[in-house]
Amino acid sequence: MAGERTNRAWRLRRRPEGAATVGDLELVEEEIAELAEGQALVKTKLLSLDPTNRIWMSDIRGYMPPVPLDAVMRGLGIGEVVESRRDDMPVGATASGFLGWQEYCLADDSLLEAPLTVLPGPLPGPESAFLGALGHTGVTAYIGIDLAEVAEGDTVVISAACGAVGSIAGQVAKQRGARVVGIAGGPEKCEHAVSVLGYDACVDHRSGDWRAQLDAATPDGIDVDFENVGGPIMDHILGRLNIGARVALCGMIAEYNTYNEGGEHSGGLSNIGQLIMQRATIKGFLVLDFGDRFPEAIEYLGGLLGEGKLHYDETIVDGGIDVAVDTLAELFDGRNMGKLLVRVSD
Amino acid sequence: MAGERTNRAWRLRRRPEGAATVGDLELVEEEIAELAEGQALVKTKLLSLDPTNRIWMSDIRGYMPPVPLDAVMRGLGIGEVVESRRDDMPVGATASGFLGWQEYCLADDSLLEAPLTVLPGPLPGPESAFLGALGHTGVTAYIGIDLAEVAEGDTVVISAACGAVGSIAGQVAKQRGARVVGIAGGPEKCEHAVSVLGYDACVDHRSGDWRAQLDAATPDGIDVDFENVGGPIMDHILGRLNIGARVALCGMIAEYNTYNEGGEHSGGLSNIGQLIMQRATIKGFLVLDFGDRFPEAIEYLGGLLGEGKLHYDETIVDGGIDVAVDTLAELFDGRNMGKLLVRVSD
Repeated sequence: MAGERTNRAWRLRRRPEGAATVGDLELVEEEIAELAEGQALVKTKLLSLDPTNRIWMSDIRGYMPPVPLDAVMRGLGIGEVVESRRDDMPVGATASGFLGWQEYCLADDSLLEAPLTVLPGPLPGPESAFLGALGHTGVTAYIGIDLAEVAEGDTVVISAACGAVGSIAGQVAKQRGARVVGIAGGPEKCEHAVSVLGYDACVDHRSGDWRAQLDAATPDGIDVDFENVGGPIMDHILGRLNIGARVALCGMIAEYNTYNEGGEHSGGLSNIGQLIMQRATIKGFLVLDFGDRFPEAIEYLGGLLGEGKLHYDETIVDGGIDVAVDTLAELFDGRNMGKLLVRVSD
Repeated sequence: MAGERTNRAWRLRRRPEGAATVGDLELVEEEIAELAEGQALVKTKLLSLDPTNRIWMSDIRGYMPPVPLDAVMRGLGIGEVVESRRDDMPVGATASGFLGWQEYCLADDSLLEAPLTVLPGPLPGPESAFLGALGHTGVTAYIGIDLAEVAEGDTVVISAACGAVGSIAGQVAKQRGARVVGIAGGPEKCEHAVSVLGYDACVDHRSGDWRAQLDAATPDGIDVDFENVGGPIMDHILGRLNIGARVALCGMIAEYNTYNEGGEHSGGLSNIGQLIMQRATIKGFLVLDFGDRFPEAIEYLGGLLGEGKLHYDETIVDGGIDVAVDTLAELFDGRNMGKLLVRVSD
């Protein structure tokens, strides 16, 4: 069967300057070789688009090696084992992990950066949730709120409040008894954050007076910042931290499109000195360091979901692997609501 | 006696733009009133000049209220009780604390921001040490190294390596078995850092290739940054942090001269995103939160001093209270070696 079948894959041809566009990556058709012993073929069903994809395309000092030029673009996804010559990945099983931006992934211990995870079947929820609220993004939110030691009565600010991570972080913070203030782009997202996700308030950073709005929404200052954005929004938050405040630094999407050799980043931050004045802490973290806490996090989030206490949004874009590059731009423009996915196959 | 005696005091007349200069403060002569019950008069012997003095002159959101316009400039010092109507401050005793930039301080519970400390006599060392290595600056160094969890084998970088705080921090880090790399201004300081203070290496940030020098001196990356400076030096350090690195954020002297309403600060930092990549932490701290650890710190530092394992430098400027403003500029120009003090009276 393989050999007659063709894979289509996005290969990184050059490091983007600014937003990634078609041209930085090329969609190529490639024949799939016969499987060798120890290999399995996974057909991608859903591809997860994450801000960190843009980091991986750059050659900055990141937390994983840059995607080599001409290699298939790195990406998380979920798919089905369609052919197998290894016992731990039977045909029909659901597998998730670094499938890459491609229609088929050849699972092979020597080729992949990390082994794929075979999920137990039948799944206790839709597949998409295992890339979102019950997957790496949900766990990121859970871990970040925990690292920031969110306690009852804290004022917690969450940027990208309706994003895949922020939307879950906001709800987990509410569960801990905090006053939770979101920051999102546009009145629709702000309305959604308050009425559906349960934020106490949400500030539209596209309005001209967002700083004054944020000040008004945090009359007692800010105890915790779950930071996904960076730039002027983070900077303004730093200026309102309370004594002993904690910043869980999860992402800085505002600057990722500047990540190229020699580029200037984080240029908008002028309030780092406030960390001294307020004896505050910024803690950078990555969910991949917390593999041993995934079961605890997923059990917690799954429990809330089952009780109807957790809402998650997802934006699933049809169009197959072809639309991956253009869809990534939606993240950086803030067009998506919640988790952004591409449906690669049914 | 009081009433015949005149005090001379620097009063803050306007908030400095850039470096503080005579004109921002005014030296005024003022009659000293008769002491009331509960008051004591302390004659300043040594005035401590610290980078934070410039913060106190500004109206940014600091850790203490700004010095009000027309008030006597806030400052730490050490002096002798020369007249007293309170039992806890007998004439002849040595007192330290917020004496202010003046020749005489009227110690009065209702007037001072914090009560003065009466030191036990006879002192186990020179008075100047109790404003430096065995005073607030030494304790700052001790606490910062402890907060950063410096461990054997760590590479620790210390900016302002020959400064009052940095010079002690470097030696405490060495005691913990770390490889300690200093950053200082000029070849003389760098030579002193290595040959006298025991740094493993010291980089001259005034040389054109200081970045390459720092890279060469930290071949295994940086585990701990004891940060006193901020700006491009801190930024370059952030770019070399190892996974799990800790930044003890003690000071950002590079930006204090920009501290005025509406000023831009911390503009040079473009590597905050590296905190995510390296899962690193910045912890801002102030020694005033660690009052309960002063005895432990001073016992430790005093012990090292007694064993000949701690060296401290001080620059004592004669000329009386008159020279306080001009002398502060030495800190920001980096002209002093070690603790900078003004001898106000013998």
